[in-house]
Amino acid sequence: MTTWMRLMSNDGRIVFGRVENSYLHEYESLHAPVPTGAVLSLRTLTPVAPCAPGKVVALWNNFHALAAKLEKPVPEHPLFLLKPAESVIGSQQPIRRPAHYAGKIVFEGELGIVIGKRCSNASLDEAEAAIFGYTIVNDVTAAGLLNENPHFPQWCRAKGFDTFCCIGPAIVSGFDWRSARVVTKLDGVERQNYPLDDMVFTPAQQVSLISRDMTLEPGDVIACGTSLGVGSIGDGATVEVSIDGIGALVNTLAVSSGEAEAAAAVEGAA
Amino acid sequence: MTTWMRLMSNDGRIVFGRVENSYLHEYESLHAPVPTGAVLSLRTLTPVAPCAPGKVVALWNNFHALAAKLEKPVPEHPLFLLKPAESVIGSQQPIRRPAHYAGKIVFEGELGIVIGKRCSNASLDEAEAAIFGYTIVNDVTAAGLLNENPHFPQWCRAKGFDTFCCIGPAIVSGFDWRSARVVTKLDGVERQNYPLDDMVFTPAQQVSLISRDMTLEPGDVIACGTSLGVGSIGDGATVEVSIDGIGALVNTLAVSSGEAEAAAAVEGAA
Repeated sequence: MTTWMRLMSNDGRIVFGRVENSYLHEYESLHAPVPTGAVLSLRTLTPVAPCAPGKVVALWNNFHALAAKLEKPVPEHPLFLLKPAESVIGSQQPIRRPAHYAGKIVFEGELGIVIGKRCSNASLDEAEAAIFGYTIVNDVTAAGLLNENPHFPQWCRAKGFDTFCCIGPAIVSGFDWRSARVVTKLDGVERQNYPLDDMVFTPAQQVSLISRDMTLEPGDVIACGTSLGVGSIGDGATVEVSIDGIGALVNTLAVSSGEAEAAAAVEGAA
Repeated sequence: MTTWMRLMSNDGRIVFGRVENSYLHEYESLHAPVPTGAVLSLRTLTPVAPCAPGKVVALWNNFHALAAKLEKPVPEHPLFLLKPAESVIGSQQPIRRPAHYAGKIVFEGELGIVIGKRCSNASLDEAEAAIFGYTIVNDVTAAGLLNENPHFPQWCRAKGFDTFCCIGPAIVSGFDWRSARVVTKLDGVERQNYPLDDMVFTPAQQVSLISRDMTLEPGDVIACGTSLGVGSIGDGATVEVSIDGIGALVNTLAVSSGEAEAAAAVEGAA
């Protein structure tokens, strides 16, 4: 197993590389993993999302336990929506409440597949070879918008807001997802704990089947869908999604400035 | 009105600029419209999609006439899905049938808004100022997949295939969309002819409201939705979507190699 991170130096430069002890061995990029020779101390660098996907393909109903709870049949092809590049943030970066939305915001802890090679109509073997590694995703949703219009479920809108796709803290290549579990804690209290071997479509099947629908590019992420235990994030609450062997993805729903102002006004009036 | 195009030179270089008579006056880029001083003959260049969107936001149910026909109320917020960057092609480039899909493929002629400035939570005035210009979109759909799964409408999949977002031939800034019509011809026969002033959300309203949902970036495209008259494209058929003042977007659904082989086999057997 190799751990890869993407970080920002003090001068704003983005570096990508392999983590060993407390050092980053810099590589040219995820799709050209050639070492540059530079070795940087992680202490001088700020982590950002471990890749910069052009698109994030997010699956719905990809776990047997969740399908059973929803009383839906498991699908015959991955069911997905797209989250835009602008929705991506890294670990420790704040989730921001949309300015015009006061409703429920929900976390979903998930395994993320990071694509390493362009692929289209990939066989299972080609799909397996196109996977650079695995990461963790918190697929955040403005739940109140999803079915706001009864004629059109707004998947892309509800899940596409800036900061609603938390990815990180690292990508691990050679990771054995079959024996791993996704554990999600809300303010330290466990809310999800599910085994990845309950997935309907394995990562290689997802990459193969989705690559029939659209060309997948290096850095693109497939969020494998969540299972039981999703729930609401209060303003100011912290979600930690962890997978042993990859790490912990930690994001706080920022108290919005509007609310801060409202709270300040209340304080001022008191 | 100014007409802008993006083209490829013989050596594969992409150039962008203002069209005057038969010449391209090159500009640095759409979001930095600074002339480079170069003037190139259009005859030496091959047109490609006039911008390279990171994402395409495609609206559903944005025309009063279509809403009436569908017997749906007009929405209170733009209803949209996302089409990935890889789905974009330019005029005269072939639409390709997905390798594993034999069903109906449908055209939708639409006005396209091209974003010129990054915008988020934009007011109507800011939204208007963020519009670089207008183009034409053929929002292609694998109609048989949309409701293949009764539990999850597959908008992103059905509309997200490579080559399913035809954009072009040009972007026109200063274009008066209010007096324009979208005319779609299938193999020369008119199938759509609808006025743009029947739109539910005007372009500035779309940009303003969608910028509350996600940051829009220069080059991003909003496909304004279609109206009456969408229909099926047979293999080998040509769709021409035109808007007076912008031009004609022409794309043919390529006869797939699989079908060509099957046809060849039939011929061989005959």
